[in-house]
Amino acid sequence: MTDAPVRQGSLREHNLGLVLRQVASAGRPPSRADIAAATSLTRATVSALVDDLIEGGLLTEVDPAPRAGAGRPAAGLVLSAAGPAGLGLEINVDYLSACVVDLAGSVRHQEVRHADQRPRDPAQVWAEVAELAASARARVEQEGLLLAGAAVAVPGLVTADGLVRLAPNLGWRDVAVPSSLAGVAVTVDNEANLAALSELHASASASQHSFLYVSGEIGIGAGIVLNGALFRGARGWSGELGHVAVHPDGPTCRCGAHGCLEQYAGQEAILRAAGAASLDDLRSRAEAGDPAAGEALAAAGTALGVTIAGVINLLDVEAVVLGGAYAPLARWLHPGVAGEIGQRVLTAAWSPVPVRPSLLGGDAAVVGAAGSVVRAIRDHPARWLAASTRHG
Amino acid sequence: MTDAPVRQGSLREHNLGLVLRQVASAGRPPSRADIAAATSLTRATVSALVDDLIEGGLLTEVDPAPRAGAGRPAAGLVLSAAGPAGLGLEINVDYLSACVVDLAGSVRHQEVRHADQRPRDPAQVWAEVAELAASARARVEQEGLLLAGAAVAVPGLVTADGLVRLAPNLGWRDVAVPSSLAGVAVTVDNEANLAALSELHASASASQHSFLYVSGEIGIGAGIVLNGALFRGARGWSGELGHVAVHPDGPTCRCGAHGCLEQYAGQEAILRAAGAASLDDLRSRAEAGDPAAGEALAAAGTALGVTIAGVINLLDVEAVVLGGAYAPLARWLHPGVAGEIGQRVLTAAWSPVPVRPSLLGGDAAVVGAAGSVVRAIRDHPARWLAASTRHG
Repeated sequence: MTDAPVRQGSLREHNLGLVLRQVASAGRPPSRADIAAATSLTRATVSALVDDLIEGGLLTEVDPAPRAGAGRPAAGLVLSAAGPAGLGLEINVDYLSACVVDLAGSVRHQEVRHADQRPRDPAQVWAEVAELAASARARVEQEGLLLAGAAVAVPGLVTADGLVRLAPNLGWRDVAVPSSLAGVAVTVDNEANLAALSELHASASASQHSFLYVSGEIGIGAGIVLNGALFRGARGWSGELGHVAVHPDGPTCRCGAHGCLEQYAGQEAILRAAGAASLDDLRSRAEAGDPAAGEALAAAGTALGVTIAGVINLLDVEAVVLGGAYAPLARWLHPGVAGEIGQRVLTAAWSPVPVRPSLLGGDAAVVGAAGSVVRAIRDHPARWLAASTRHG
Repeated sequence: MTDAPVRQGSLREHNLGLVLRQVASAGRPPSRADIAAATSLTRATVSALVDDLIEGGLLTEVDPAPRAGAGRPAAGLVLSAAGPAGLGLEINVDYLSACVVDLAGSVRHQEVRHADQRPRDPAQVWAEVAELAASARARVEQEGLLLAGAAVAVPGLVTADGLVRLAPNLGWRDVAVPSSLAGVAVTVDNEANLAALSELHASASASQHSFLYVSGEIGIGAGIVLNGALFRGARGWSGELGHVAVHPDGPTCRCGAHGCLEQYAGQEAILRAAGAASLDDLRSRAEAGDPAAGEALAAAGTALGVTIAGVINLLDVEAVVLGGAYAPLARWLHPGVAGEIGQRVLTAAWSPVPVRPSLLGGDAAVVGAAGSVVRAIRDHPARWLAASTRHG
């Protein structure tokens, strides 16, 4: 209950967003008349707004689908495939990656470089990230796309002013993030948060208003979606699922505590227990029915399940998504996770909670980072139009 | 981001609430002119609204404080101490209680009956609750208060349509709640949720926008406050902290799972470990320095701390409140809880999370239940005025 007066805001700003989202959510390219009908704005207002959005590179007209009956069909509108695009970058413990997503959400470029980042200095890592960013920019500008901004996903805690406060598995503490890369402004966020956002927007089902996204990399993070939005916590540090205790007296974790989930279900723990050299090796062995691989994955699934069941008892979320490296392993992790949920969640008997692999697999975080840039434009097109007029 | 047009609503309804809350939050009784100045409403509008609120029994005029200078000081306004009141009722495993709170939030009546409810049939329990309700009504009507509604706190999961779906420690499953008691309509809610709400409204500090309220009774529940509001979960079943695993292979819980927190920090587990007959006995022994009592409380504090540290890693809440029977024991539980938080929470080193006893102690749930009735009137006074006109 707020006693503040309703803020007027700019009507044009509001309506630009309304028209753009109408195009984005339409099943087939809508005409100006379709948008006017759907939004209750006048035909003339819609036409003026659409002209501005076309001029700003956010919408494109396409040929109408032929149809029966009298009259020339009106041109349809789609989100521009040659307008602004978002650059996503990811720093993880054993790889760096880049990805560009256009306004329609399509991935237009992607590059991954596998290498252990732990022995490297943060400055070396940022230098290689800058290379990835520059090469992404060069590549997509050939296709007529314009980079609008960049977002970096990191496996750790970030502050509101763009510092990596702590990334235990990288060994980073208080590492600054470059203010620009490839000539565009940079924001930074936790990789599990960005992956969860990407899952939220990729999921067509509006029924999943709340879910726990579990990101399994060298570390384990979670993105918590409640009431249809990412829950970040009081200081932005929610989701440290990897440091929830499974066995309080268990082995020492990299964070200094005992028996954290990462010690049972982190990638390194699983590979060690399975005697596997890599995730690909683990998966091949599991597919071939190797008992050590099967047991290692079952044990990880059980540990994950104990922890996830606690989260469901606490938060009453509707679904669990296994993401990151867990997505391709979900087939073997699922029995342990589902079994523990069934036994431990008080409401499971009459209200089961489904567990499914991520729709985007291991790319969710970097795609989510790129997507966060274009979503900002889709949510506030007036800002983009104003900036492109100033610079253009 | 919503595309819905701004809903107009009733201006009078909005302004009645605005005036009422202005009186409720004022440091000293404000005059009509003070309210007009604070709300930017005209003096005439404020006067008309105040007259309606006085006639409906929600506000009372009080003599102004004498002051220096010229002119007769204006009468001040306070929330009525002889208007509508809320009836709170609590069913817990080892007691029943009733409480009446007036519009200003003062407790005007309270009664507790200690007895184990587990051997009894739900119908017997409801019959005694009805007695408590009738006696509360008779008592407060003598003081000119009018019961506006009742809310019942139960140690279990409730549904939106007012059914106790499951209360494991009472042995209740799908128990219906009477639609009225003592002649007023009844709502039902989880006891930890109501206690957390009561803590939220009792806490003057607006800095605690998020906290975990832990209710220690025979069972252990939690009320989760995020962004200044109670978080209920997708189906209203959040906060089942007592069934989060501490040692996944531990003793069997009443819920059927192994190693739940209740098995380590529930009242019965603590009393058994201490060899104490009751909570009062336990506290006396702890105060006298009895080693068994001290060790039992320390072990419970550690188990609570392991679980609470997991919640902080997950949700990044700003504070922890020990409530219910934990409030008077907080002195002995605190070292274990704070110690585990310090060791296990990733951000604890630079951003400590305070742990404190509940402001309302063991009464928080029943006071919160009564308070929920009067808060509904304070939030929507127009509804109350309309109903009292119809009936009065």
